[in-house]
Amino acid sequence: MSLYKKFPITLFNTLNRKKEKFEPITEGFVGMYACGPTVYGDPHLGHVRSAMTYDVIYRYLMHLGYKVRYVRNITDVGHLEDEVLGEGEDKIAKKARVEKLEPMEVVQFYTNRYHHFMDRINILRPSIEPSATGHITEQIEVIEKILESGLAYQVNGSVYFDLKKYSEDYEYGRLSGKVLEDLMSGSRDTEGLDEKRNPNDFALWKKAKPEHIMRWPSPWSIGFPGWHLECTSLSTKYLGEKFDIHGGGMDLQFPHHEAEIAQSVGYCGHHSVNYWIHNNLLTIKGQKMSKSLGNFITLEQLFDGSHELLEQAYSPMTLRFFMLQAHYGSPIDFSNEALKAAEKGFNRLMASVSTMEGLSYEKGDINEKLDAAINASLDEVYFRMSDDFNTAQALAGLFDLGSKANAFRHGQLQVGNITEKTFNRLKEVFGRFIKEVLGLEKQGEEPQSSDILDNVIHLLIEMRTEARANKDFATSDKIRDKLAKLGVNLKDNKDGTTFEIG
Amino acid sequence: MSLYKKFPITLFNTLNRKKEKFEPITEGFVGMYACGPTVYGDPHLGHVRSAMTYDVIYRYLMHLGYKVRYVRNITDVGHLEDEVLGEGEDKIAKKARVEKLEPMEVVQFYTNRYHHFMDRINILRPSIEPSATGHITEQIEVIEKILESGLAYQVNGSVYFDLKKYSEDYEYGRLSGKVLEDLMSGSRDTEGLDEKRNPNDFALWKKAKPEHIMRWPSPWSIGFPGWHLECTSLSTKYLGEKFDIHGGGMDLQFPHHEAEIAQSVGYCGHHSVNYWIHNNLLTIKGQKMSKSLGNFITLEQLFDGSHELLEQAYSPMTLRFFMLQAHYGSPIDFSNEALKAAEKGFNRLMASVSTMEGLSYEKGDINEKLDAAINASLDEVYFRMSDDFNTAQALAGLFDLGSKANAFRHGQLQVGNITEKTFNRLKEVFGRFIKEVLGLEKQGEEPQSSDILDNVIHLLIEMRTEARANKDFATSDKIRDKLAKLGVNLKDNKDGTTFEIG
Repeated sequence: MSLYKKFPITLFNTLNRKKEKFEPITEGFVGMYACGPTVYGDPHLGHVRSAMTYDVIYRYLMHLGYKVRYVRNITDVGHLEDEVLGEGEDKIAKKARVEKLEPMEVVQFYTNRYHHFMDRINILRPSIEPSATGHITEQIEVIEKILESGLAYQVNGSVYFDLKKYSEDYEYGRLSGKVLEDLMSGSRDTEGLDEKRNPNDFALWKKAKPEHIMRWPSPWSIGFPGWHLECTSLSTKYLGEKFDIHGGGMDLQFPHHEAEIAQSVGYCGHHSVNYWIHNNLLTIKGQKMSKSLGNFITLEQLFDGSHELLEQAYSPMTLRFFMLQAHYGSPIDFSNEALKAAEKGFNRLMASVSTMEGLSYEKGDINEKLDAAINASLDEVYFRMSDDFNTAQALAGLFDLGSKANAFRHGQLQVGNITEKTFNRLKEVFGRFIKEVLGLEKQGEEPQSSDILDNVIHLLIEMRTEARANKDFATSDKIRDKLAKLGVNLKDNKDGTTFEIG
Repeated sequence: MSLYKKFPITLFNTLNRKKEKFEPITEGFVGMYACGPTVYGDPHLGHVRSAMTYDVIYRYLMHLGYKVRYVRNITDVGHLEDEVLGEGEDKIAKKARVEKLEPMEVVQFYTNRYHHFMDRINILRPSIEPSATGHITEQIEVIEKILESGLAYQVNGSVYFDLKKYSEDYEYGRLSGKVLEDLMSGSRDTEGLDEKRNPNDFALWKKAKPEHIMRWPSPWSIGFPGWHLECTSLSTKYLGEKFDIHGGGMDLQFPHHEAEIAQSVGYCGHHSVNYWIHNNLLTIKGQKMSKSLGNFITLEQLFDGSHELLEQAYSPMTLRFFMLQAHYGSPIDFSNEALKAAEKGFNRLMASVSTMEGLSYEKGDINEKLDAAINASLDEVYFRMSDDFNTAQALAGLFDLGSKANAFRHGQLQVGNITEKTFNRLKEVFGRFIKEVLGLEKQGEEPQSSDILDNVIHLLIEMRTEARANKDFATSDKIRDKLAKLGVNLKDNKDGTTFEIG
């Protein structure tokens, strides 16, 4: 039986405001789309929350045996400064003028930076990572179909989605709980409103002003696509007109995801997404961390400790562990205390990984209760993850299993008390869950160099053991103390000496 | 004076078959385009030759003070199996069917792999890395202009470039030395010929057959762009209708680059490229190493030693050094002997980098002849690189300077024999040229882990020195021998003990 049948997933579907059993359209296959970064600045902590949420879901789905096509876009055009009103200057073109660069040079630079930092946090690359500018043809096709369906109109070379018309037949605002009438009456007056039939209508295509440098030909004008459009176009192109999961930050529910739903109805006559997942945000002093609010810490700053709010540098794996400690649907507030606690927690978990790896089976007296308890605990880790991807609960379960490993290691329990089958399952599931599903790995060393370092340290441990055997405590203490100064801490336990770095 | 004025570049312009003084269109700025990979398979040694050639040119131009926009494309559609005849099955779509994947999933996978391996060889990412499928709109615009100029014709939804018409007014074959008449009479009969006015006419747009899955709408048909077109479209979009340098493997001269020239004439009325650079190929047993010939060694195989032709694994830096030992215009033949020699050469060069780094200035008696000689040698390294980017000659010059560092280190020369200014210039140029221009760096360790390793080894060296001082040669020999077994070799010289890894 495949794992996904043994541990069926339920997930909170934002569209219906309840937990639902997850049933993919095609058994064994999952199509998942997540809103990716706008590449006009360095990646910061706020970006990681969303990327990690879908990374862990992607990893877990694959671990359960699903074949997953995971699409995450790169927004490299059309994401306007004032996201709600859809007006203002194109973020990427603005940056380009400042730096006197070709916009695509800015895009390339920050895309590379994004990849570099996400790689360091062990966030897997999606199966397909399409860009908005790379799909102008496709977006024009979508607009043409929406126009055919009568849910959009053309004005002065621009095309807008007609929300009033749409809401005659369909429900607008179901995802976010907004009510269109309220939106319409409450709208602020702004540029471009003279073109729109209603202030909340959003652009599918905008005619470019003379100073706008990112521009393409279209049937309506030389211009550029509206921001909401790319996700409808890219998701349906690579996943089909109906697909399983769409994810994104909860700040994207309105207007972005509402617009996507409306566009998909205009484009293919129905909703495209079966399950909408929204991750909560990373806050700092209670406020969303974002580029536009200017309260962000970049990943570079986090990893080298250079931001004024940081009391120290934190490693990529500390950050990863920090985020996994919360369910994706809960807010996380940044603080040095929380990150330091995460650093300790991560190190403790990695120590138990080493302990588990060091265990080998020896036959003994089977304790059936213990054997059943360990199997139940292993199942429990899966059930927790399958319960709306609860990484926080799954981690807690893994810590319990880690303390079992310590008990085996230190003789409070004997490996022989459980069957060899259970023992092997414990080692395998524990190791794979932490590494493959949660993406937590021992930190930052090339294998080769780390091997040499291990060997060289073991040589020193050997010399120290010899010195102690010869009662040459001056030498043995010197080796321990000097290593400690270098950040290598020796620990003596009954089976010998182990070490920890950092 | 900027470095590029002090060491002006001459380069071999394939178009004119001679070395020419390099004069960029806008002083201080260089636009460079290079043909990038077709991403339908794992990167192999053959790919590295081309990527490295333009990487070193890019690095050197920047080092000299030019602001460089370097564009290298990703071919993700339309590169047909039979490149000369322009027919056959699309390479990427074929692979996709085999693996039952969406073509863009194959593209993403191999693009990521390409980046991963190029990063390991320290090949810099280009300023912009546009893809063919990401620029369908732009390619359609180019075709429309070529049709307007009368140099292309439409048949059954496909558009072909009219070479006979073109050759009435322009010279076809100047770059490669081919003669159109010979080509026409010698052409083999093949599919699609019934559509073309002449067998050598090449497709700008191809109508898609029903089984062709990569397809876009166009004014002529649902289809896809011809392979040659993307480079004309992408280079002029990001570098302008006239730009400085276009590079590529010499196997691309015909038909690819000839087609690009013809297309640019049709598109903007003139040649777009001022300097054409072609790198020679990597051969294996005298034959071009390529995917289509099946005689390739992937980078993964090279780095882990798993290919049957490999006697050992070779590191990314060994490969880099191996290729830098030849001028880009000369062929390089793969062999284990040559790579082993490169490994030794690289290690020797890195040892002299360490030696140079360890030198510090002390006043002494200035030897003006020596001082002038060292400055001349430093200039000579630049002159050699500025002479058509001759990395082989520049490396030889750096080895000479490295032996000077050793002479200073071992007392045959005194640093005080040269002025402090010359000493500082020697250290700076030597270090920067090797690292920034040639891209050679000490190998593959995270700084942190490498620092700890260094410190731990130094602790062992210290213990060994103490043991020797106490005439405890059993211990001192044991430390040396055990470290040697771990691949850490100690070397005693008059100022103390140093070590080398590997």
